Amino acid sequence: MARRIVVALGGNAILTDDPTAQAQQNALEKTAEQLIPLIKSNDVEIVVTHGNGPQVGNLLLQQLEADSPKNPAMPLDTAVAMTQGEIGYWMVQAFSKALTKAGMAQIDVLPVVTRTVVDKEDPAFKEPSKPIGPFYDEKGKEDMLKQYPNWTFVEDSGRGYRRVVPSPKPVRFVEEKAIAALPSPLVLPIVSGGGGVPVVKTSEGYDGVEAVIDKDFSAAKLAELVEADDLLILTAVDNVYVNFNKPDQKKLETVTMSEMEEYISQGQFAAGSMLPKVQAAMAFVAFTGHAATVTSLDNLPNFLATGSGTRIMP
Amino acid sequence: MARRIVVALGGNAILTDDPTAQAQQNALEKTAEQLIPLIKSNDVEIVVTHGNGPQVGNLLLQQLEADSPKNPAMPLDTAVAMTQGEIGYWMVQAFSKALTKAGMAQIDVLPVVTRTVVDKEDPAFKEPSKPIGPFYDEKGKEDMLKQYPNWTFVEDSGRGYRRVVPSPKPVRFVEEKAIAALPSPLVLPIVSGGGGVPVVKTSEGYDGVEAVIDKDFSAAKLAELVEADDLLILTAVDNVYVNFNKPDQKKLETVTMSEMEEYISQGQFAAGSMLPKVQAAMAFVAFTGHAATVTSLDNLPNFLATGSGTRIMP
Repeated sequence: MARRIVVALGGNAILTDDPTAQAQQNALEKTAEQLIPLIKSNDVEIVVTHGNGPQVGNLLLQQLEADSPKNPAMPLDTAVAMTQGEIGYWMVQAFSKALTKAGMAQIDVLPVVTRTVVDKEDPAFKEPSKPIGPFYDEKGKEDMLKQYPNWTFVEDSGRGYRRVVPSPKPVRFVEEKAIAALPSPLVLPIVSGGGGVPVVKTSEGYDGVEAVIDKDFSAAKLAELVEADDLLILTAVDNVYVNFNKPDQKKLETVTMSEMEEYISQGQFAAGSMLPKVQAAMAFVAFTGHAATVTSLDNLPNFLATGSGTRIMP
Repeated sequence: MARRIVVALGGNAILTDDPTAQAQQNALEKTAEQLIPLIKSNDVEIVVTHGNGPQVGNLLLQQLEADSPKNPAMPLDTAVAMTQGEIGYWMVQAFSKALTKAGMAQIDVLPVVTRTVVDKEDPAFKEPSKPIGPFYDEKGKEDMLKQYPNWTFVEDSGRGYRRVVPSPKPVRFVEEKAIAALPSPLVLPIVSGGGGVPVVKTSEGYDGVEAVIDKDFSAAKLAELVEADDLLILTAVDNVYVNFNKPDQKKLETVTMSEMEEYISQGQFAAGSMLPKVQAAMAFVAFTGHAATVTSLDNLPNFLATGSGTRIMP
């Protein structure tokens, strides 16, 4: 049996400082080239997932700015699906180039529109916390509330008001059976982009919900459900640190679950940044008994050679 | 071997007169319900493809209206990919409901981002003909040409100027092997939405191009490449007519290729409307030796019972 690895790509793998399609495609070409050694490893199958924060943010801004009765803004679930098409297309284009260059053009890369089931009783629905879209002044906020009375706003560090949406935990993927059945390694799936389109199960099928799912939690759930042997969360830094930016900062290499729990209780990891990555990796380790790694794309060669990166052990 | 049928859904299966996401999703729920008898037929596998004209048109309008250096409008190839995500998501949601109601919830519906390869020497690139996006007055047109010097505009029946893009013929799909390998009938693929994202082959991989592909030609090519036994082009009318809207109008039922060629030479079918559907159906018949059918969703029960519809025979 080949070793199956779920690779979660952060926003920095796609959007650098230039939001044009061309620049994002160029960034992804570099990313795809960096992943080639992993794809080339003997007996490895990879499943790729990715974030969509900057892209869905920009799309929502455009949609709201041009909103009209003749051409209405799309709701958040549809916007997430649109970014799965957008980034999925850019990714296959980038992988086609990288795989061709590496002499592996026979591998088909398949971006799949993926729905992530969340629990309608998830406490996150009572406490929307994830800011999305533009900043508004007081009047702008009131105008939006007239149009969308069920939106929730928070004041954001003196910069104005911002819409917040729930960020519920992923439970499963509607397409999980089909994804697991794709003929690997000849098909490399790109799935649950942006955490997946959030839906809740109903007696009739699934209803889309106005929420966003953290892509690292979604990656961990995906890794669990496709029975992956490894979860690789790729971010901007080679390692997780404790006492970060302090004189006694310490790079974490191989760490145990109980050490990580202690660090979390000390508040070592920033909420909304390193904390969810660490928690997602730990969820995978707890459920599967396999190790999970948080590292950077740049460090991938060292990870492959020596296991370098922050590796959380069962 | 199960009988494999490629089903091409026209724009009227998605967008009626209300452009909200909810209304389009409602229209697709009705469409999915109407397709259930076909999916339920013994030993039938279906592959679904669909148009995206109104959706990509609306998306381009929004993007252009909100275009800014910080949030630039996406190019046409990316916009087509975005509508594959959008409509693909709406479709799986609609199919989930219809399949659940029919007791077939075990079938996974999988929308796949699909790239359609076109020939960079296709004569269509020299004669852009497909209007997309908004109407402009003389000044608006000149302003756009300053920003996008390589765009082509045509004057559209006194209503102003409109951008036109090439509509090259589909040659193949990059993802065709992977699509054909999906484990049918447990996975029902939704592919090459909006004709597919147009790309040209380069020595390095594929380059996206600013063009749109006719979804009926794309459906015929798809049917050929997945070795379908049947191509079903679903449109707003039950049958193709000759002498349409004249006293001697005649409904076409079973017709031969040579009869259709004669009707085409008489100019019986409207360019940009029934003509491409008829030509696409004929291309499939000519290549495969199987029959192809043009009919409506409403007529599907009669098609299944008696073969009703316009059926073009080899």
